[in-house]
Amino acid sequence: MKDLFGSPGKVSGLVLRIGQCLFAAASLGVMASASGFSTATAFCYLIASMGLQLLWSFGLACLDVHALRLKRDLHNHIFVSLFVVGDWVTATLSLAAACSSAGVVVLLIRDTNVCRVDSKLNCDMFLISVVFAFVSWFLLSISSYVMFWLAASA
Amino acid sequence: MKDLFGSPGKVSGLVLRIGQCLFAAASLGVMASASGFSTATAFCYLIASMGLQLLWSFGLACLDVHALRLKRDLHNHIFVSLFVVGDWVTATLSLAAACSSAGVVVLLIRDTNVCRVDSKLNCDMFLISVVFAFVSWFLLSISSYVMFWLAASA
Repeated sequence: MKDLFGSPGKVSGLVLRIGQCLFAAASLGVMASASGFSTATAFCYLIASMGLQLLWSFGLACLDVHALRLKRDLHNHIFVSLFVVGDWVTATLSLAAACSSAGVVVLLIRDTNVCRVDSKLNCDMFLISVVFAFVSWFLLSISSYVMFWLAASA
Repeated sequence: MKDLFGSPGKVSGLVLRIGQCLFAAASLGVMASASGFSTATAFCYLIASMGLQLLWSFGLACLDVHALRLKRDLHNHIFVSLFVVGDWVTATLSLAAACSSAGVVVLLIRDTNVCRVDSKLNCDMFLISVVFAFVSWFLLSISSYVMFWLAASA
């Protein structure tokens, strides 16, 4: 198997996973602390999806640390196939959550004047959470492409 | 290059492209004919994105027909690289459009009572359009995976 940027058991892979964890946690935290998030199903789904991504990326970051410390090679078929499926499912769910929340945020802030009228809704925090979710998805999508490339070129 | 289900210049590839065209056209048509779609940016974005997907899939369907009639082989690096980039960009935009519209539809139908109060909004048609967009994206994602696999395993 080729040795690509961001492949499992490498420092670049670990950095990507840590970035995914941080941005997913930030997105989750900001959304959960914004008042009125429970009014939209999309925001609740964003919290669930970022929680899943946090767990997945944290698990793989721990595996990368383990592989780097013991100098283990994670480039075998079983590991890579598992990572490919997990990464793609998580990345698709994260993109879906970020986009559905973005659609709702744009509707609330730009298309209607709900945010100006209803002071209970914390629209700025919804927006920040969605931006963090997109950054987290972008980092995860890099990992997903690398994994898929590794699996396909094996 | 391997000969996979749905690869370019095959009957299965052509069937996938025709399916993508049909569902993208249906989604676009239903949304454009629903009254009140212009109130949400997400719905306008869905129309633009489905229009792009329609053009892309129609172009590739024509190329598949051409290849099938003249028995040309489309499995070369330049073609496949072009298809990979185009397919992935279109698939990501389509998923983003479908999800952002789905977020807004759920907000309108389930989270609030806007659809019951405002009779000008054609919520059932929004819902049908979003379902068609998801089907179209699903068919495009199959093509995208096949193309990426072909490019990576070459």
